[in-house]
Amino acid sequence: MALIVQKYGGSSVADASSIKRVAKRVAEAKRAGHDVVVVVSAMGDTTDELIDLAKQVTPLPPQREMDILLTAGERISMSLLAMAIHNLGVDAKSFTGQQAGVITDETYGKARIIDVTPSRIRDTVARGSVAIVAGFQGVNPSTNDVTTLGRGGSDTTAVALAASLKADVCEIYTDVDGVFTADPRIVPTARKLDRVSYDEMLELAASGAKVLVLRCVEYARRYGVPIHVRSSFTTHTGTFVTDQPAEGEIVEQPIIAGVAHDRSEAKITVVGVPDVPGKAARIFEVVANAGVNIDMIVQNVSVAATGLTDISFTLPATDGAAATAALSEHQPDIGFASLQYDDTIGKLSLIGAGMRSHPGVSARLFAALSDAGVNIEMISTSEIRISVVTRSDSLDEAVRAVHTAFDLDSTEDEAVVYGGTGR
Amino acid sequence: MALIVQKYGGSSVADASSIKRVAKRVAEAKRAGHDVVVVVSAMGDTTDELIDLAKQVTPLPPQREMDILLTAGERISMSLLAMAIHNLGVDAKSFTGQQAGVITDETYGKARIIDVTPSRIRDTVARGSVAIVAGFQGVNPSTNDVTTLGRGGSDTTAVALAASLKADVCEIYTDVDGVFTADPRIVPTARKLDRVSYDEMLELAASGAKVLVLRCVEYARRYGVPIHVRSSFTTHTGTFVTDQPAEGEIVEQPIIAGVAHDRSEAKITVVGVPDVPGKAARIFEVVANAGVNIDMIVQNVSVAATGLTDISFTLPATDGAAATAALSEHQPDIGFASLQYDDTIGKLSLIGAGMRSHPGVSARLFAALSDAGVNIEMISTSEIRISVVTRSDSLDEAVRAVHTAFDLDSTEDEAVVYGGTGR
Repeated sequence: MALIVQKYGGSSVADASSIKRVAKRVAEAKRAGHDVVVVVSAMGDTTDELIDLAKQVTPLPPQREMDILLTAGERISMSLLAMAIHNLGVDAKSFTGQQAGVITDETYGKARIIDVTPSRIRDTVARGSVAIVAGFQGVNPSTNDVTTLGRGGSDTTAVALAASLKADVCEIYTDVDGVFTADPRIVPTARKLDRVSYDEMLELAASGAKVLVLRCVEYARRYGVPIHVRSSFTTHTGTFVTDQPAEGEIVEQPIIAGVAHDRSEAKITVVGVPDVPGKAARIFEVVANAGVNIDMIVQNVSVAATGLTDISFTLPATDGAAATAALSEHQPDIGFASLQYDDTIGKLSLIGAGMRSHPGVSARLFAALSDAGVNIEMISTSEIRISVVTRSDSLDEAVRAVHTAFDLDSTEDEAVVYGGTGR
Repeated sequence: MALIVQKYGGSSVADASSIKRVAKRVAEAKRAGHDVVVVVSAMGDTTDELIDLAKQVTPLPPQREMDILLTAGERISMSLLAMAIHNLGVDAKSFTGQQAGVITDETYGKARIIDVTPSRIRDTVARGSVAIVAGFQGVNPSTNDVTTLGRGGSDTTAVALAASLKADVCEIYTDVDGVFTADPRIVPTARKLDRVSYDEMLELAASGAKVLVLRCVEYARRYGVPIHVRSSFTTHTGTFVTDQPAEGEIVEQPIIAGVAHDRSEAKITVVGVPDVPGKAARIFEVVANAGVNIDMIVQNVSVAATGLTDISFTLPATDGAAATAALSEHQPDIGFASLQYDDTIGKLSLIGAGMRSHPGVSARLFAALSDAGVNIEMISTSEIRISVVTRSDSLDEAVRAVHTAFDLDSTEDEAVVYGGTGR
């Protein structure tokens, strides 16, 4: 018997029949003898519909009221799921984030969890009931007002509850079969990974893999919560995110976990920066003050004759306007010549904890890209990741070439299941 | 400067544009220098839609979960209204029933308010903000779970808050201009009342007038909360429900406040009851044990030769099946001959605090009905009310005849405004 935290996203509870399907799955886990805590998102497009209603009422909704509004979504899905489970003869009770003891700071709209005190959840499970918890929400204890956790909030709720309850596993149900060596929509031969380490999953998430958000993986790593990413449409085993090797697993790690890609970034090049100390620092200070996080940075070698250099960096394309505006405003005191903005870039990242001890990974990567005729514009590396920036329109080809070069392609007889097709 | 509690029902906040209209009205009251607390129902058909979702998931939803589900509706309307008011430059904060201190018993689905501790509402108003409160909901303090108040719950929330805050007036906004001498759909010459006493309003509500529910009026009378029933579509003065005469009002009350009618009742006749002590008591005990409230009772004179009598009573038609089933089950021990069930009855009630000191009201009523050719089947009276049961299909004619007989018809030049037509 285990304590299992299950998390179902909005597409898994989009309508009454989906909710009944999830209820059946929860009831089966309970009947198999496990203690079950379920974290649930709002139904389907509920959150978007509520945001749309708010926009109809005011262009600038106060964030406190926005959070109250949005948390209505999980209130609906959690109570309906509890009813549906109850209807299968299994007792179930639903709890808001506040009732479940999810304590956050007061940053409405993207609150951070600062404590989890799930005494009501523990009591409910101890009495043999299933506890359903609203994802994405918590309470700001200084005002007793509801807060929302922002993007990926329900996954984070699930991992935080699993950590606090010392659950055996946190199952994240999604519409794919697990974590793949690459996006199967781009690489049809991509393989599902049986296991991936926290560090690898962090790099995958940070590099564009969408299956789990970064903060959820960070939380899981900090508290050692094993995550099982799996499909809500099948009973197949998915991917375990954990540092513990599975039973029978060869302990030595493979070199490469997978290839991630990201088309959401843009590149800004600051042209003609005086090559004197402090100028680069000033540029990134201006960008940071505009609330923009930058990713990769490249500084060209200075041309001795002019004493000028170019500095390029990548950033989320959604922050492009804010960053260029801030830099233009400070052009006089920084003293650069001009700005170039390019949002037609793509980023490919090769990730694998095994590359730490395997020299030659970069060489093999660059050779694969060269053979495929893909030009590399920027390079950045960590201990377990190499990222390159290419033209956006050559990114797919680059991903396929690298996937093959590192022997990640599945063999003929492996079935790849992807997409919400109910299989 | 006054402290005003305003209550807006679901039809007043049915969509974004209605919410903006209500926001404007609230902001105007605030800008006129008043302190304003607003109680709001769920938007339009939200509650029915949520009930429908629950039915799709399970035929028998647990009531605790049902209450959690339904309270999502006010969460949406209250936050949207707060945003819309904020957008007009007036600070507004929304609060759930729990946050507003609406403490109830644990009868999920139809909880009774046992205390109101609105410290957050007081603080919000003291800081110059408008407080928006979710109607229809409270908290069960023994479990910290949300409860709903049942039918007319938002009106009751408003009156309870007004009592606790010692508000100067509780304004109930509706789609009619106030309380009328009769239903204008049946009596086109019905007049809006400027004032009606608590006792009269209680009798009107109990006799079929739908503008206010009984429990809300009971609460207002107990705590002396003046209610102002008015239209959310006009700025006309509506009807004050209070025992305080208005300034300049002739203190002596008119004899009659109005004529109410009710088609929701049915009549059961228990035929051939042995005319011995205890039989009537036994019949009503059986009906009460089935959870049925009865209204009027008539016992025929016993026929000496047989020693048998008939007992008739009225009850909500929705309880007809339960009552007849319970009586049939106890036919052997009660010893009656048969049951007759009739749901084609109508009830007319004449209400007026002035009738206490005016003899002859019943005579005038019976004469009016007789002149109109309406047969009376049952009669029941209180100090300020006379009710008669007629055939359902002669009820409208009866109401018009009585309305005219008691000089309630409006004169030509009085405008009667009725219905949600935005006038």
